[in-house]
Amino acid sequence: MAVNLNPPGNLLPVKGVRLATAATGMRYQGRDDLLVMSLSEGSSCSAVFTQSKTCAAPVLLARDYLEQGSARALVVNSGNANAATGSIGLDNARLSCELVASQLGLQTEQVLPFSTGVIGEQMDMPVFASGLEQLKERYSEDNWLAAAKAIMTTDTVAKAVSKQVKVGAETITITGISKGSGMICPNMATMLAFVATDADIDQAKLDQWTSRAVDQSFNRITVDSDTSTNDALVIAATGAAQTGELSDAQLGQVYAAIESVLIDLATAIIRDAEGATKFVTIRVINGASEGDCKAVAYSVAHSPLVKTALYASDPNWGRIIMALGKAPAENIELDKVDIRIGDVDLIVQGQPAADYTEERGQAVFNQSEIEIRFDLNQGNAHYHVWTSDLSHDYVSINADYRS
Amino acid sequence: MAVNLNPPGNLLPVKGVRLATAATGMRYQGRDDLLVMSLSEGSSCSAVFTQSKTCAAPVLLARDYLEQGSARALVVNSGNANAATGSIGLDNARLSCELVASQLGLQTEQVLPFSTGVIGEQMDMPVFASGLEQLKERYSEDNWLAAAKAIMTTDTVAKAVSKQVKVGAETITITGISKGSGMICPNMATMLAFVATDADIDQAKLDQWTSRAVDQSFNRITVDSDTSTNDALVIAATGAAQTGELSDAQLGQVYAAIESVLIDLATAIIRDAEGATKFVTIRVINGASEGDCKAVAYSVAHSPLVKTALYASDPNWGRIIMALGKAPAENIELDKVDIRIGDVDLIVQGQPAADYTEERGQAVFNQSEIEIRFDLNQGNAHYHVWTSDLSHDYVSINADYRS
Repeated sequence: MAVNLNPPGNLLPVKGVRLATAATGMRYQGRDDLLVMSLSEGSSCSAVFTQSKTCAAPVLLARDYLEQGSARALVVNSGNANAATGSIGLDNARLSCELVASQLGLQTEQVLPFSTGVIGEQMDMPVFASGLEQLKERYSEDNWLAAAKAIMTTDTVAKAVSKQVKVGAETITITGISKGSGMICPNMATMLAFVATDADIDQAKLDQWTSRAVDQSFNRITVDSDTSTNDALVIAATGAAQTGELSDAQLGQVYAAIESVLIDLATAIIRDAEGATKFVTIRVINGASEGDCKAVAYSVAHSPLVKTALYASDPNWGRIIMALGKAPAENIELDKVDIRIGDVDLIVQGQPAADYTEERGQAVFNQSEIEIRFDLNQGNAHYHVWTSDLSHDYVSINADYRS
Repeated sequence: MAVNLNPPGNLLPVKGVRLATAATGMRYQGRDDLLVMSLSEGSSCSAVFTQSKTCAAPVLLARDYLEQGSARALVVNSGNANAATGSIGLDNARLSCELVASQLGLQTEQVLPFSTGVIGEQMDMPVFASGLEQLKERYSEDNWLAAAKAIMTTDTVAKAVSKQVKVGAETITITGISKGSGMICPNMATMLAFVATDADIDQAKLDQWTSRAVDQSFNRITVDSDTSTNDALVIAATGAAQTGELSDAQLGQVYAAIESVLIDLATAIIRDAEGATKFVTIRVINGASEGDCKAVAYSVAHSPLVKTALYASDPNWGRIIMALGKAPAENIELDKVDIRIGDVDLIVQGQPAADYTEERGQAVFNQSEIEIRFDLNQGNAHYHVWTSDLSHDYVSINADYRS
């Protein structure tokens, strides 16, 4: 069902990053569900996490360990979120870090834990430990595709991308993976995404870049307005590329490539959203504030009635007006608003567009990639979000079995 | 599909209120879609309207006319919302009031217009006018059931209720009707609801009662988080019951009966929600503020993942924790929170309940009426909302044809 989303192309190894995967059988059969990513000494590591007030045990622990500033490995399991598991869940997350640390010769606090899957069930630690045993001989720089597959839950396509930036005689590589398909409305965070580069980027700069790039990517997607208890994004920079110090211009190029990797990974989640048949951009321009533009964009992106109309390819654009009307924005005057879908005007200065016809609207709604654009004519702020439609398959996926 | 909702029982005439309905054929075939409710001279009339920034032409006009304080008739059409119709739409709404005023010998401003149906299409005024002609000979105090049917759109059951209060030798009657099934998340307002009583209630008191009763009823329901452009609730008090001045105790009884009518009409909308198979109460107690309780209640009530789990009768309660976690509430400490579904504990002081079993959870989720209760253990504020589940039929109703 994914909308114009191909399996990952050629994934490039990142110097200083080795990956190993295994199938524990904890929930899924016949597929990998455990990943450890090891980072070379001296790597910088930044992350953002879900803002959920009921965040999972691994999130609490990873946030705490990350602050100690010496992360050297990430351990990720899929199938069990280890959320709403109380103090036992916290003990289990800590134990998973201890086990990985012992395998890799690290301190427990150098291992960041991540989980994704069903909320409210305890991890089966003996099964986890035995899966971990399998990893020993498997660490390799070439396992990025296997890693992308091991972290999937309801995803139908593995999500991964590599980019390179030429810096003098050296080449810097950025490779990232993400997973996510439902319960997607990151709030200053994301679903699981892990990105690594061999560029040498100090901690302060990497923190700043992470926040900025997440704001341009994962913080602009929504499938169903639901925010996960386990969202996390990590960017690691190993510095193994041996480029020497980067100039400001070179840093700008590397940042742009990282941001572009994050946008690819974030939009891949929307293209593979549960039951999605459309990839939709909601763009709001000329608002009085970015807050107003964001309020309008998310009001439209979260509206079940807009989303079912998109699914039906029904140009029932009255619902778009409804969603604008309920947006918690400060400065909206309908008399000033222009709305278009694709290249077709719906509303001009608050009045129905004279040249709109059902046929022209239908032609846009028939497309699999649609842009809905609001011009608020109030100022010069803007914002956009990416979203999907609401289909029978979304209900089936979330009602017919427990994911 | 409606959940434990019967057709209206015996509807009692309200002295001073006459109703007439007709079938214009503007959108629906073979059913009434036009209602005029005429109020005797000296009636008080209060109303609340949608807070939508893109509210419909009739809402703009009704709000304006109501302020002039001499409303004597309501005109309601279903099938066309007359929203997002620009200045032509406003002209048409005004014309509909002029036509009714001329039929009943009133001023245009004494007629309040209401519309419900598809957004973004112009009204067919010749068809409307010819439907209005049919009403002439039909005004009667006994037409409440026909009125309830005439205002339906995607409703599957007409919604109406009567209550009486004994006051000395006289009896005061309250009868009300409502419609609504999707695009339901009233914001200081409601879908269409019209309530009348023959009690003598002055304007100031009626305004105060309306606001208070709406807060206890229509402001506590959500089907899909989408707020209509046309929501309106009107309460008219004709004073025709000839009871003489009411004592405070009698006024208290009358208010209680009005509030109870509003709660019945509001919850009927949830029981008849598009595709609904469950009637769900989300109750939040012991919060630090009502705002916190409301934030949690709506976060759970709006969550597509909670709603699909309810539809599936799947006790996948991790999603309830997720929805608590994303609520924009100030004071939530998971360690203090208790959560139960029906009479089964899920979470006690932030830890998974020791006596929870899948079987006990399943027994609650199998019911058609479910209460999800959060005890925040932070203070003594509380709030509750009523909502429905998210089913295949919700998607079908909103995707397969334009309602």
